[in-house]
Amino acid sequence: MIIIGELINASRKTVASAIEAQDAQAIKTLARDQFEAGAQFIDVNAGVFLDKEREYLGWVVRMVQSEVKAPCCIDSPDPKAIEEALNVHQGIAMVNSISLEKQRHDMILPLVAGTDLKVVALCMSDQGMPQTCDERLSIADRLINDLVKANIKLENIFVDLLVQPIGVKNTFGLEFLKSVKEIMTRYPGAHTVCGLSNISFGLPERKLLNQTFMIMALTQGLDAAVINPLDKRMMACIVSSEALMGKDNFCQNYLRAYRNNRLL
Amino acid sequence: MIIIGELINASRKTVASAIEAQDAQAIKTLARDQFEAGAQFIDVNAGVFLDKEREYLGWVVRMVQSEVKAPCCIDSPDPKAIEEALNVHQGIAMVNSISLEKQRHDMILPLVAGTDLKVVALCMSDQGMPQTCDERLSIADRLINDLVKANIKLENIFVDLLVQPIGVKNTFGLEFLKSVKEIMTRYPGAHTVCGLSNISFGLPERKLLNQTFMIMALTQGLDAAVINPLDKRMMACIVSSEALMGKDNFCQNYLRAYRNNRLL
Repeated sequence: MIIIGELINASRKTVASAIEAQDAQAIKTLARDQFEAGAQFIDVNAGVFLDKEREYLGWVVRMVQSEVKAPCCIDSPDPKAIEEALNVHQGIAMVNSISLEKQRHDMILPLVAGTDLKVVALCMSDQGMPQTCDERLSIADRLINDLVKANIKLENIFVDLLVQPIGVKNTFGLEFLKSVKEIMTRYPGAHTVCGLSNISFGLPERKLLNQTFMIMALTQGLDAAVINPLDKRMMACIVSSEALMGKDNFCQNYLRAYRNNRLL
Repeated sequence: MIIIGELINASRKTVASAIEAQDAQAIKTLARDQFEAGAQFIDVNAGVFLDKEREYLGWVVRMVQSEVKAPCCIDSPDPKAIEEALNVHQGIAMVNSISLEKQRHDMILPLVAGTDLKVVALCMSDQGMPQTCDERLSIADRLINDLVKANIKLENIFVDLLVQPIGVKNTFGLEFLKSVKEIMTRYPGAHTVCGLSNISFGLPERKLLNQTFMIMALTQGLDAAVINPLDKRMMACIVSSEALMGKDNFCQNYLRAYRNNRLL
């Protein structure tokens, strides 16, 4: 399971304040805490700042990488902001994201073509968000084909199948789960990724739903997620799922997590 | 999800004592608590008593049914004990279980043939416990065919695919999960059932593993389980899974469970 730590996101007020105040220590602490809790990538998002996003995003990348030896997941709807952040990034970043929206697609594709960058392929088009499994697969197929033609290796592609709230329509969870299984079967080597908290939007006890849905998605083959790695119960769900799926030899990781008091 | 309450089992010391002392109130309380927590069937097991099992099992059935309007899941390796318990049972019981072990098979089959009884088809043969998905399917196919030929409706068959501990072999969870999906796909209308606590045998934090595995099995289509319905977190996992799988219109059950303080 590839864990992308989601906490350095300026849509969170404390993070926005830290970025505006150029509080390096606050950003570094968030980076270190997530890294030590098991995040392989640190997501960085400064999208709320609009005109200052480009300047801030690069600064955040530098602060993160001055603290931990981990790549960032550079998370922006603005291709120009992604490009500038890539210029200061060390090692192989994850680009979040290309989609089938024409403008974003045409600007991100040349940026990642022929590189070893990890690329999130977001299943969104100018026709809006897909609702069914088939709609997701149709967008994903086109994105994967475009990326492979642009010399991106399949194993560097992370398909984000877009979680939508079951509170809006009760088939949204199932359609998503089916699409994870399909992508993992059709494209061996490619990854599926998601930020899953959207599933519980509008319902009570959101953590319970998010954790349960994570286990379900893992059962279908999901192998990467944008989550809060400091959420101990969520991490325990992931560690126990991997043991149960036979992905943890002799349950070594599970037993280590237990000894380190990380299962409760 | 069909929930079979597992608590009235004489392998639990307090239950064995209550049965020996013919403490009707203790048995009735366990029946009522499980029924009110959502159990549709009350499992009754007096297997530890050997020579007195037949006498005790019928008494337990009578005590349960004098307290709650629910059928029992009559749980015994002894066909004679099952037969005697059926004689005092009111309504349509679940018989737990037939298997491919020759003696049990030949004695249980005539007992259930042509009836409306629910029948647990345990995937065990005289060759021992199956390890792989294929071994499970081979036994299940034969059991289902035998039962259907004996005029048992498919919707009255509950296939128990036998959970085995991941601590013994790390593929045991995955092989079980695959077999659930296969049975639910091959035999629409039939049910799959299990007692899943065996999955975590020998490992720490067993509840976490059991709850996680329940969610995984539900994702594969499992629709019945022998569990402790008084375990609030386990029940919350089931209720949230059903909402996420689109089996709970407008999340009504989930919201009711929330209002009744049953999600935590």
